[in-house]
Amino acid sequence: MEKFLDPASVALIGVPRNTGLGSFNNAETLLRYGYEGKIFPINPKAGEICGLKTYPSIADVPQPVDVAVISVGRERVIPMLDECISAGVKRIVVITQGFADADQKGKEMQDEIERKARANGVRILGPNTMGVLNNYKKFTTAFIDLLRPETFSPVSLIAQTGVIHVAAQNMAYKHWGKAIDIGNGCDIDVVDSLSYLARDPETRIIVIYMEGITRGTDFLQVASQVTMKKPVIVFKSGRSQAGAKAALSHTGSLVGEDHVFDAVCKRSGIIRVTNGVELTDAIRALLLMREMKGPRIGVVTVTGAGGIMTADACEEYGLTFAKLPVGLADTLTKGLPEWIPVSNPIDIWPIGMIGGNYTQSVGTALTELLCSDEVDGVLGILPVSNSPLHQNLNIVDVLESSRKNSGNNKPLSLWPYMDASSFIDKLESVDGVACFNTIEQAVQGLSFCYRYHQATIRHVPAQEMFPVDRDALRPLEEKGKSQKILIGDEALQLLRLFGIPVVKSSIARSREELGTIASAMVFPLVLKVTGAAFLHKTELGGVVTGIKNPDDLLRAFDHVVENVRNHRPDEKIEAVQIQEQLRGHELLLGLKKDLQFGHVIACGMGGIYTEVFKDISRAITPIDKREANEMLASLTIATILKGLRGAAGIDWEGMVEIMERLSYLAYTLSDINELDINPIIATHDTCVAVDVRIVW
Amino acid sequence: MEKFLDPASVALIGVPRNTGLGSFNNAETLLRYGYEGKIFPINPKAGEICGLKTYPSIADVPQPVDVAVISVGRERVIPMLDECISAGVKRIVVITQGFADADQKGKEMQDEIERKARANGVRILGPNTMGVLNNYKKFTTAFIDLLRPETFSPVSLIAQTGVIHVAAQNMAYKHWGKAIDIGNGCDIDVVDSLSYLARDPETRIIVIYMEGITRGTDFLQVASQVTMKKPVIVFKSGRSQAGAKAALSHTGSLVGEDHVFDAVCKRSGIIRVTNGVELTDAIRALLLMREMKGPRIGVVTVTGAGGIMTADACEEYGLTFAKLPVGLADTLTKGLPEWIPVSNPIDIWPIGMIGGNYTQSVGTALTELLCSDEVDGVLGILPVSNSPLHQNLNIVDVLESSRKNSGNNKPLSLWPYMDASSFIDKLESVDGVACFNTIEQAVQGLSFCYRYHQATIRHVPAQEMFPVDRDALRPLEEKGKSQKILIGDEALQLLRLFGIPVVKSSIARSREELGTIASAMVFPLVLKVTGAAFLHKTELGGVVTGIKNPDDLLRAFDHVVENVRNHRPDEKIEAVQIQEQLRGHELLLGLKKDLQFGHVIACGMGGIYTEVFKDISRAITPIDKREANEMLASLTIATILKGLRGAAGIDWEGMVEIMERLSYLAYTLSDINELDINPIIATHDTCVAVDVRIVW
Repeated sequence: MEKFLDPASVALIGVPRNTGLGSFNNAETLLRYGYEGKIFPINPKAGEICGLKTYPSIADVPQPVDVAVISVGRERVIPMLDECISAGVKRIVVITQGFADADQKGKEMQDEIERKARANGVRILGPNTMGVLNNYKKFTTAFIDLLRPETFSPVSLIAQTGVIHVAAQNMAYKHWGKAIDIGNGCDIDVVDSLSYLARDPETRIIVIYMEGITRGTDFLQVASQVTMKKPVIVFKSGRSQAGAKAALSHTGSLVGEDHVFDAVCKRSGIIRVTNGVELTDAIRALLLMREMKGPRIGVVTVTGAGGIMTADACEEYGLTFAKLPVGLADTLTKGLPEWIPVSNPIDIWPIGMIGGNYTQSVGTALTELLCSDEVDGVLGILPVSNSPLHQNLNIVDVLESSRKNSGNNKPLSLWPYMDASSFIDKLESVDGVACFNTIEQAVQGLSFCYRYHQATIRHVPAQEMFPVDRDALRPLEEKGKSQKILIGDEALQLLRLFGIPVVKSSIARSREELGTIASAMVFPLVLKVTGAAFLHKTELGGVVTGIKNPDDLLRAFDHVVENVRNHRPDEKIEAVQIQEQLRGHELLLGLKKDLQFGHVIACGMGGIYTEVFKDISRAITPIDKREANEMLASLTIATILKGLRGAAGIDWEGMVEIMERLSYLAYTLSDINELDINPIIATHDTCVAVDVRIVW
Repeated sequence: MEKFLDPASVALIGVPRNTGLGSFNNAETLLRYGYEGKIFPINPKAGEICGLKTYPSIADVPQPVDVAVISVGRERVIPMLDECISAGVKRIVVITQGFADADQKGKEMQDEIERKARANGVRILGPNTMGVLNNYKKFTTAFIDLLRPETFSPVSLIAQTGVIHVAAQNMAYKHWGKAIDIGNGCDIDVVDSLSYLARDPETRIIVIYMEGITRGTDFLQVASQVTMKKPVIVFKSGRSQAGAKAALSHTGSLVGEDHVFDAVCKRSGIIRVTNGVELTDAIRALLLMREMKGPRIGVVTVTGAGGIMTADACEEYGLTFAKLPVGLADTLTKGLPEWIPVSNPIDIWPIGMIGGNYTQSVGTALTELLCSDEVDGVLGILPVSNSPLHQNLNIVDVLESSRKNSGNNKPLSLWPYMDASSFIDKLESVDGVACFNTIEQAVQGLSFCYRYHQATIRHVPAQEMFPVDRDALRPLEEKGKSQKILIGDEALQLLRLFGIPVVKSSIARSREELGTIASAMVFPLVLKVTGAAFLHKTELGGVVTGIKNPDDLLRAFDHVVENVRNHRPDEKIEAVQIQEQLRGHELLLGLKKDLQFGHVIACGMGGIYTEVFKDISRAITPIDKREANEMLASLTIATILKGLRGAAGIDWEGMVEIMERLSYLAYTLSDINELDINPIIATHDTCVAVDVRIVW
């Protein structure tokens, strides 16, 4: 990968003969960009392009070629690839579009490219890519003429598109240091690029724009390691249904469920952003301010209104107001009228204006906040003015000395106003200071620093083990695998083997058996038709609840049999299931095997509101006690499950243990595709699985 | 109000003698700002300030003074005010802070200022204000030295703070045309300022920053009218609990419930924004692009990724993708390989690049979208480059001609990238075009134009009338007023008089009456303790549900009596209430009199989840059938209430009628403070109020 971004020589295959306006000549672009390596333009019809000797074919190039860049029509890509392989080129960028991004024929050609590359030990970047950009080496494979930026930052980009690559001004801090557009990603993908940037000393922050993902498990593993060393910011689009559909056709990549990706970010310590503003702000915050070790901020503001906006933003972004350092209020208001209030946010204007020394007041407040053990980061809402009358509002020196006096180790986020644009560079030249366009962004900036800190100290759960009767499990597992599905009593049995409490339940194969079964159970009961043919039992009229006595049970049996026969005259009813009816909170708990990331465990609100409130939390397995606890606590209904206003809560510990055991089930039966316990009834002393469906 | 912003002469009371750096001399600021009227500095100790003759007191000024600006210490404000009144000044700006914003003494002084002003027909702006700014007349009362901007826009600001006033660069488009900082608003308030700007021909858009509100009903009425003529954008902070608390102390204004303010915005057509980025974007969108008459957008993008981000943003901001105009795909791809896809978003890069005429392709796509009846607005995601090689990416001419060819009547929102900053002014010089920093903002910009259109055509409900038996109502109303509260059977009776169905319910004053009552009712029943002393019945053990037969009813009576006696041995139990127990969806419905805006009607999800999901919709009364419908439909549980997956929905029409009748109840009994129907049980054929509490 290194040589893709720092080649000593590049062959450009398919370079146009014409140059200048509208030619999109990548040899010209590369020269103008200042690349200092060797350039070999390949064009059978031109002798010279931009003063460079041109070769009819890659075979004619007399020297080793580190990277070949192919940008010919899609039909000619494979022949050119063959020539490169014959010539011994090991790294090829395929710019051309019209492959998996276009139609079936394109998809087949892309598969052929991939096969040839694998067979010959050649690495391919693309197709459908802008390729790479390395401002440290003045190198780019872009055909759109980029003006080389005067400044850039140690922030590197991996993207499935060229747009963010070239839209640097809008999205990056100054410009990207390096950028890799993986395009359709037929060979080199996000994981390869991430592994490279993880060990690249010129990269301090990694940004990924992705629409979908392949090699999910590898991604999870690599990202989990990188985030301990460097922040990884991911902007994943295709969040909406329409967006996901559009993403599918864009680079032909697999778009996973968006909620699953949230769980991946949490597990791996990725900072996810959802729009361009957040992306830019997260980069700026993490690059300039770095970590913030807690959520408590101190605020110095020249406007009361700013304090109020800050309060709103803190609530939104999960930060809190720190306690005011002891003695600071007295220091600031010494000699001033007693009506002047000091709290956090510190409204510094009346203090500075009436006290006659605004600059010193700001400096004192900032220094004390930065020094205080009670404060994790500081927000300044401060005017900066070009007016010659207000040079004393200029706070650059104040910031410098405050940071020096305080030991300079906490983030200081600013909303500079009035003549902000001409001050930003000066303000940000102070170590640890970042400026934002609005108060809300300045607060969110600090929250990114806190999120990164949390990522570096995050808990990584390991799978806990539980005893399971393997001999009893085997036949159930085999039956499930052969049937592809297990429901009813057998599915409940399987849960029971993993130590998950299940409802008292029996199978009756005839009307006559009902009496004996009922005598061993506590009314009220539920009767359900069973059998793989009757999956949607309720719609078939195949469920009767609230059965209060043996007579009702017989009536319920007749009723269900009649209903189901009416709906499905051709299916034989082999048995009914009888369960004790439980009252309590209806929850749901499940596993789903994600194509990319493996088993995802989900728990949440069951019953009729499941689909409208979607109050469900998800995690990538394995989970342990701590994570199961966090999942439950993150539900909106957690307050109710804990017991609201004297009402009994659920057996929380019991539920947590069931979730741990379910994680172990996923670990043990790794072939399971889906498992839904819906409902699991939770009361104050027990949680019991009532209905379960397992799909292999 | 006009003369406050355009005075022929201004007296500055409390102007400092010194000038220059750090002096905050408002005479100097005003001169530098270019004000062309007469300035009379008032300072007993100076003969001349900045070359202006200075007067010892306002009484000494030989000419009429249109506006006096007071900026002395708070103790000297009232004496100065007295002098102004004696001198016949009718408009006074009080800059000084330390009034209702500070302490009780300040509050009292502010009340005194208000009284004096009222008594003498003098209008006061402030205290605690930056005053006014009028760039059309080069006039400002700010003491912070403002550099007069070279450009400004017909956008005027009303704010409860000086910060947005002076932070123009960050928040306004170019700069405000006019700005009024009402400060503590002891006399001139938001409503006065809004009325003035409504009729001001130099104001095309009104922006309000507010923390709280006074004269809510007037505000609602004035705003409702203005928004039909000009967009009104409100940024209200204090949304969070912490923010609301901070707002209370900032300008001493009354902070209403934030949800109520949302209902006010809906009713009055105000466009509410919640942060600085949205504020700036809304101004830009409405100023440059104006109205968008529907939600359907067409997109021309040079990047597939941009299309995906657009899809995500459309879902977030309530816009949709328009159908592609008939024939456009054929026009664009004529002569190109057939794998090139054309849909909306139109990925114009392969078309323009392979077809060899990028500029023309962009122009055709834009023109056709702007012309189509199926398209309400257009989004362009287009590169702009300073590179001499890519002048043909410069789209200013393309935009000009597309708009001309299409009749120029729809919003065109742009995300220009690459060298965007140097192109924005040129691009926005095209009529109807606005540029944004990110794709998401560009989409949201269009959504603001659509929201404004919706505001101008919004439905304004009138109160429908219903017959009520006034004679039967009178004694209940009187009892309620004298007791301050009505609960139990009497409260249900009152609802019944307004035609709201209530549960079958009776009162038993002794154990002996239970039998007779039960014989006229259908089991199961509910028994509840009644009486004003037992408001929280459940906590007292004063409710038994699911009573199945007469024996159980007697047991329930004994149980409740015992429980309540144990909890409240000193209170006499006078009666119990017996109701039929209904099964169905538990909803809640209520009225609350907001201190500012009058009765607010609320409906939503009842039962144990009310507080966790807060699925409640609110409207200012009166409401009619259409609005009641909209309120129900806006609930998250609406899909369930409509009947999800074959399950029965509720009697929707019945619920709507109950809401209309409740609105009429609020209109009739205008003194009611709170009314809570919780629960109202809704089944597929009826909605019935079960428990109600009315507070006067």
